[in-house]
Amino acid sequence: MILLTRKAEFSSAHYYWNEAWSKEENERVFGRCANKNGHGHNYTLEVTVAGEVDPVSGFVVDLKELKEILQREVVGVYDHRHLNLEVPEFAARTGMIPTTENIAIAIWGRLEGKIPGAKLHRVRVYEMVDLFADYYGEL
Amino acid sequence: MILLTRKAEFSSAHYYWNEAWSKEENERVFGRCANKNGHGHNYTLEVTVAGEVDPVSGFVVDLKELKEILQREVVGVYDHRHLNLEVPEFAARTGMIPTTENIAIAIWGRLEGKIPGAKLHRVRVYEMVDLFADYYGEL
Amino acid sequence: MILLTRKAEFSSAHYYWNEAWSKEENERVFGRCANKNGHGHNYTLEVTVAGEVDPVSGFVVDLKELKEILQREVVGVYDHRHLNLEVPEFAARTGMIPTTENIAIAIWGRLEGKIPGAKLHRVRVYEMVDLFADYYGEL
Amino acid sequence: MILLTRKAEFSSAHYYWNEAWSKEENERVFGRCANKNGHGHNYTLEVTVAGEVDPVSGFVVDLKELKEILQREVVGVYDHRHLNLEVPEFAARTGMIPTTENIAIAIWGRLEGKIPGAKLHRVRVYEMVDLFADYYGEL
Amino acid sequence: MILLTRKAEFSSAHYYWNEAWSKEENERVFGRCANKNGHGHNYTLEVTVAGEVDPVSGFVVDLKELKEILQREVVGVYDHRHLNLEVPEFAARTGMIPTTENIAIAIWGRLEGKIPGAKLHRVRVYEMVDLFADYYGEL
Amino acid sequence: MILLTRKAEFSSAHYYWNEAWSKEENERVFGRCANKNGHGHNYTLEVTVAGEVDPVSGFVVDLKELKEILQREVVGVYDHRHLNLEVPEFAARTGMIPTTENIAIAIWGRLEGKIPGAKLHRVRVYEMVDLFADYYGEL
Repeated sequence: MILLTRKAEFSSAHYYWNEAWSKEENERVFGRCANKNGHGHNYTLEVTVAGEVDPVSGFVVDLKELKEILQREVVGVYDHRHLNLEVPEFAARTGMIPTTENIAIAIWGRLEGKIPGAKLHRVRVYEMVDLFADYYGEL
Repeated sequence: MILLTRKAEFSSAHYYWNEAWSKEENERVFGRCANKNGHGHNYTLEVTVAGEVDPVSGFVVDLKELKEILQREVVGVYDHRHLNLEVPEFAARTGMIPTTENIAIAIWGRLEGKIPGAKLHRVRVYEMVDLFADYYGEL
Repeated sequence: MILLTRKAEFSSAHYYWNEAWSKEENERVFGRCANKNGHGHNYTLEVTVAGEVDPVSGFVVDLKELKEILQREVVGVYDHRHLNLEVPEFAARTGMIPTTENIAIAIWGRLEGKIPGAKLHRVRVYEMVDLFADYYGEL
Repeated sequence: MILLTRKAEFSSAHYYWNEAWSKEENERVFGRCANKNGHGHNYTLEVTVAGEVDPVSGFVVDLKELKEILQREVVGVYDHRHLNLEVPEFAARTGMIPTTENIAIAIWGRLEGKIPGAKLHRVRVYEMVDLFADYYGEL
Repeated sequence: MILLTRKAEFSSAHYYWNEAWSKEENERVFGRCANKNGHGHNYTLEVTVAGEVDPVSGFVVDLKELKEILQREVVGVYDHRHLNLEVPEFAARTGMIPTTENIAIAIWGRLEGKIPGAKLHRVRVYEMVDLFADYYGEL
Repeated sequence: MILLTRKAEFSSAHYYWNEAWSKEENERVFGRCANKNGHGHNYTLEVTVAGEVDPVSGFVVDLKELKEILQREVVGVYDHRHLNLEVPEFAARTGMIPTTENIAIAIWGRLEGKIPGAKLHRVRVYEMVDLFADYYGEL
């Protein structure tokens, strides 16, 4: 078994806000992120898949296909969007705040079961170079 | 004479939109950036100052003071803000769109004349790792 | 369960020297690092914590609190210090040499049990971009 | 137990081609990589070893020795070479195509059992900054 | 006037060889690069253009158009190609060896006069992260 | 004319201290750097040379020779050394404090006139990724 990781990037706006809390409580917990005008990031996504190397092609997964899946399922939906206002998992008033952790979990949900011939192993999301979350699915 | 460069970062939301144009014209010129919900970036700022090295301290400029000036004049104003809505030079309905070029020019205007003992030489702004603008003031 | 990683940096001096060995033996084993005048590095620290995402805040751990803990327990103690002379775990004549491996183990000891609501999962220390150590605690 | 990782780099040419397939089939599967003139990359190799820290030296493994092993077993063989034409595991007409996955597996085979006092834990190969493979040996 | 820089990447094979020299002379001058099987690199290209900011769009140059020009004139010609065998300026038996310096000059020739509304200012080519050439045209 | 830049690295200890000042004055001006036990950095050096491309070799300068000069004149002298105690230009009680600015000037002095066939154009020294100095010689 081998792991293959592909990176992608998306640039999005977001903010942190819990509608059940007062402005003061939001600012106490979320600090500068509790600005409903939004701010933004260049997110870096690393998607790792696990599988056997095909002895004929030498690939775990078709790289062009993997790139298209990441584009269709994630980058095309998140890039140049406001996560709180336009991306369904965060905009649907479910209270799911677009933290780095929740973005990783949401992207896992978008990709799981959609990569032919390999198993989704890990989703890593960098909000900045000094902060990232890793999700391995429900163990 | 020597040049000293200090980097800083800020995370902001923005969008590109010319109020004098139709939605179609905005989308034709600005593509995915013409989304008024906004998107965002981790901007990297490089500020270069020029001066003589002080023979006693070995410094062109006091580094702590330079860091404080960048924080007060730029990072404190731009970071975790929506440039089009909250930062005066772009929010003031002057029609100045927060492109990488205009952000570099605006930061030059914020810093020029405020760095004791050294001359502002260059402002570089990265919107992403593969796109940046350099401004040297009016020559 | 999800993993969250935060980076921090510290700049320190160190050298490698075993007091029980001759100068020749120290130079044979430690090469250029066996210079008691010391040399130094920009260390990069990655601290990974594991936990459940709080459904209300969307956080595994309070990021401001995590940053303060890293500052208080590690960066404030190691940064701009000579590890062999000023940092207790290496200066205490216990013979613990400040190699990348031992720095990772020492930082684990400084952080374990101090991060509210999450479990310390991994400490990674880069001495240079091409050399790093990972410690997961005693398994 | 602790993990220590050392990076190395090599610059090589390669192409993807399955002799059992037609030109059309090769181009359909391998795209731009199916150009028998070859193209090339700056590969980055990360080799991770696992072991106990020697309480006297503070090392898991002798760093100079590890560097020499990587140089002798991998970099000296792969660097400034055409993988398909000059590196035995890919040139031997065994049909092993030098994909990132197969390069990681081949390097594992070159290093396993050759690192005194530590266990080879992982081989990571970056073909580009946005694509890498991890191999942990046969589990 | 402001400068705008856009990065692009291409992965190519090349070798250094002067047909007028003996094998020994080629190896003496070019070292490991004098291997006619070729080796390769992930090249990074930075193209800087100079111009006035359009007060309406906020752009020096249309970014989509610039990207298309770089793709058509450079990346589409160099990427996944063997420079000595397939790229006209090096393959034409003119004796122009694809060193980093010559690649920068050749790319200048490909781009000069083709960027509407702005002046080509600098072409920077990285062969590796620790080696790059800058060309500003004939001054 | 073309510019060629080569990077090198060295890891050194240093501190900032003016013997003519009190401890309080040193700490006021130099902050955490005024610790005579020393601290350290991974310095990155970029040396840029200017010249004409040799039409036969395609080189501005012989890369192996340039690397040897950087090793002999700078890296071999600065790496794994304490700048204040062991490197002549800072240790000679001349009062030259090893700031990033002064290190750049000192390296210029070490390299000027020693690079056959090309002109030293710029010395850039990074103390950390967010701080660097550029020296172009006396203009």
